[in-house]
Amino acid sequence: MLILSSPSGAGKTTISRELLASDENLWMSVSVTTRPKRPSEIAGEDYRFVQKGEFDAMVKNGELLEHARVFDHHYGTPRAPVESSLRDGRDVLFDIDWQGAQQLTEAMGDDVVKVFILPPSTAELERRLTTRAQDSAEVVASRMAKAAGEMTHWAEYDYIVINHDISDAVGEVSAILCAERLRRDRYIDLSRFVGTLTEG
Amino acid sequence: MLILSSPSGAGKTTISRELLASDENLWMSVSVTTRPKRPSEIAGEDYRFVQKGEFDAMVKNGELLEHARVFDHHYGTPRAPVESSLRDGRDVLFDIDWQGAQQLTEAMGDDVVKVFILPPSTAELERRLTTRAQDSAEVVASRMAKAAGEMTHWAEYDYIVINHDISDAVGEVSAILCAERLRRDRYIDLSRFVGTLTEG
Repeated sequence: MLILSSPSGAGKTTISRELLASDENLWMSVSVTTRPKRPSEIAGEDYRFVQKGEFDAMVKNGELLEHARVFDHHYGTPRAPVESSLRDGRDVLFDIDWQGAQQLTEAMGDDVVKVFILPPSTAELERRLTTRAQDSAEVVASRMAKAAGEMTHWAEYDYIVINHDISDAVGEVSAILCAERLRRDRYIDLSRFVGTLTEG
Repeated sequence: MLILSSPSGAGKTTISRELLASDENLWMSVSVTTRPKRPSEIAGEDYRFVQKGEFDAMVKNGELLEHARVFDHHYGTPRAPVESSLRDGRDVLFDIDWQGAQQLTEAMGDDVVKVFILPPSTAELERRLTTRAQDSAEVVASRMAKAAGEMTHWAEYDYIVINHDISDAVGEVSAILCAERLRRDRYIDLSRFVGTLTEG
């Protein structure tokens, strides 16, 4: 389970998309949210969009691995698809914020790897947020403030990737994923395999 | 500090060579040994070959980070070049066995990352050891026995790479090195950098 967090504009969405395209064994968790769909978003792909009543019912029935309120909206991670992917031996990618990352770590323990993506500079972050034509100046300003708040949580993450260049950053997150799969304690049946080598 | 260990024949030497060729920031520690030079080896590159008296003096003067006896010969890691590489901000690669890995971990602590390379099968290991024309059948048999002994130490390592294909294995060790450099606790001055982002 790989969590990617970052302030808006640091490149997390592009990195996630490229990772998923290049790695067959990776599946992305789709969050559920009560916020309205943006024009550029695809329902069921970027988010599952639900009404507040449905969201509350999911919380009540324990159907969410984690959930949090950000500004006026609620966000959560549905439990069933994550558990089914892990059962199939696939790794799961989460694009969630620090609150979600904290709750998911509490729920799932050591199986969670947390990566924080940082922009190379404040100027570059502002430039990236401003070039999204669909957002107003007020939205950009509020995102810059939110980004600063989000970034104060960097120390809760296992790995830090500074996104100077998007393809380098994709390569670095891929390397983290590859390396984590090679950790001794993530192998299944390694002891039996080494047994076949040493007794042969 | 990256330690690569493996039984002879698992591909460690080739992997080390390719890593060093592709990574400018990596320097390889050259071990010192009392065993005779093999025809294919280059003094000062594969090993520094010394007499027993000189080796004992190095041990006595604390010039070795670790040292061990394997069969009838002594092996050790000179301290000064390692410390000077680390001071220059370069990572150091060690091609040493489990005894050396244990001692180096005791001496250097958390800064050490240990990778164990395994062959894909006993048959393949034997094939690789046999195709080294310079070794006699007795040497091959003794290496197979030594390999089995070495492999019992796999559980002391952080990462396990199974060498099915040499270029995949090189890529995997590179990914481990890349990921380890991105660990939050390996950054210097990250807190100050994030400060510039959040206060900007």
